Amino acid sequence: MSTAAVKRFFKIIVEYDGTEFHGWQLQPGLRTVQGCLRDALARVSQGDVELVGASRTDRGVHARGQVARGVAVTRVPELKLRAALNGVLPEDVIVRAVEERDESFHPRFQARGKHYRYWVESGGWPSPLRRRWCWHVPDSLNLEAMREEAQALIGEHDFASFAPAREERGTVRCVTELQVSQRAGTGLIAIDVAGDGFLWNQVRTMVGTLVDVGRGRWPQGEVARILAAKNRRAAGPTAPAQGLTLLEVFFDEDAQVRYPGGDDPCAF
Amino acid sequence: MSTAAVKRFFKIIVEYDGTEFHGWQLQPGLRTVQGCLRDALARVSQGDVELVGASRTDRGVHARGQVARGVAVTRVPELKLRAALNGVLPEDVIVRAVEERDESFHPRFQARGKHYRYWVESGGWPSPLRRRWCWHVPDSLNLEAMREEAQALIGEHDFASFAPAREERGTVRCVTELQVSQRAGTGLIAIDVAGDGFLWNQVRTMVGTLVDVGRGRWPQGEVARILAAKNRRAAGPTAPAQGLTLLEVFFDEDAQVRYPGGDDPCAF
Repeated sequence: MSTAAVKRFFKIIVEYDGTEFHGWQLQPGLRTVQGCLRDALARVSQGDVELVGASRTDRGVHARGQVARGVAVTRVPELKLRAALNGVLPEDVIVRAVEERDESFHPRFQARGKHYRYWVESGGWPSPLRRRWCWHVPDSLNLEAMREEAQALIGEHDFASFAPAREERGTVRCVTELQVSQRAGTGLIAIDVAGDGFLWNQVRTMVGTLVDVGRGRWPQGEVARILAAKNRRAAGPTAPAQGLTLLEVFFDEDAQVRYPGGDDPCAF
Repeated sequence: MSTAAVKRFFKIIVEYDGTEFHGWQLQPGLRTVQGCLRDALARVSQGDVELVGASRTDRGVHARGQVARGVAVTRVPELKLRAALNGVLPEDVIVRAVEERDESFHPRFQARGKHYRYWVESGGWPSPLRRRWCWHVPDSLNLEAMREEAQALIGEHDFASFAPAREERGTVRCVTELQVSQRAGTGLIAIDVAGDGFLWNQVRTMVGTLVDVGRGRWPQGEVARILAAKNRRAAGPTAPAQGLTLLEVFFDEDAQVRYPGGDDPCAF
């Protein structure tokens, strides 16, 4: 029997409640999802491990389908790794699937797209039972106006107006889906955004801008003008983190595990 | 102008996330909903206040429509009292409505019924985003069997088998509604229970018993036999607190404020 340590490569699909994490990204001395997951992988492995995620979600942002690449020397069989990791993870993060891959798998470079959902609670009082995962806006919102103005954001555009910082890869991205829908009988509005990738804060700034549209703060056609301005000061405020959930990361291979029986993280 | 302190009487409708409370009931040195609400009322009043609730929800149980009677000497007008109270309450409890009543109003003696909802997440992994308000049961459940067996519990019965302790008013109660429904595309099951009143732990023991039915642990007709036994040891386990929400307390007067546009606390 060989005693050489053999590195194995895993695609790991993760759900978390972001409320009590300082975001995804490792930070010394702070509780982060990447840190928790890396420590969990280390506890079921021998030696050093690596762990990289598809999306560096901000503090307070949640995920149903974050995807990570884990590299480790471990004797745990592929089919038992999910249970092994969940056995050592805290209750606000869970591994939904683990699949063994070859070394070439990378969640950031190979991701073809992402799907986020943002929850807005409109009107009335802020519900304590919903406060961890939605943004309460006291005003009632004009959904028709929001849907009309959202059309300007669909497609390939320079989204410089929706990002606070320059980015290495430039500011052109493609938004493939942008839907505003009301959940019957709840006062809740879901804003679904999918695209090939997003600038830092882009989704939250798009939501903050569309909510301003819904409040009637801006004339018709304003979102197209904001986009054309290519200036962050032109857009609305950044919506708060807690309303945002990363639902899914898409890959070409798409062996992706879907939500059991549906894609609504929150229909409780 | 009279300087006499005039006591005023209020019906207060309250929502809370019970996770971080030691239940409703005042307990020295512990954080309870009744304590928080009493302190909030005292901060907008002069002198002593009284506060009594319709239901002494257990530690970890939530409410959308708990009803309390508040007695206080305050100059805050009825229409501004809700905002005044919410201004001093913590974020996991909120006053949804305040209405002035006469001295005779009492939420416990005048309540005609209560409606609870219990959330079960069946199959798969326990979702971190749902962990505060539902019970994860790894088995898949036979809902048809649960619905059939639930029929035996509807109506006026001696529920001694579903309560751990003798009660002053005896153990006969009337269950007017008991529904088991699946939320499409979510793996979530809602168990709705309404009745004229409930024994301590009755709803959670009914749920624990019905879940055992759903798992196939008991033969057909067993729930009727459990009821007839009048012995707590005959029934199933008590379901955990966090799945339970007090949705509404019914009164004859029924000036009760309903949920905005629907009664689902959780359809997010």
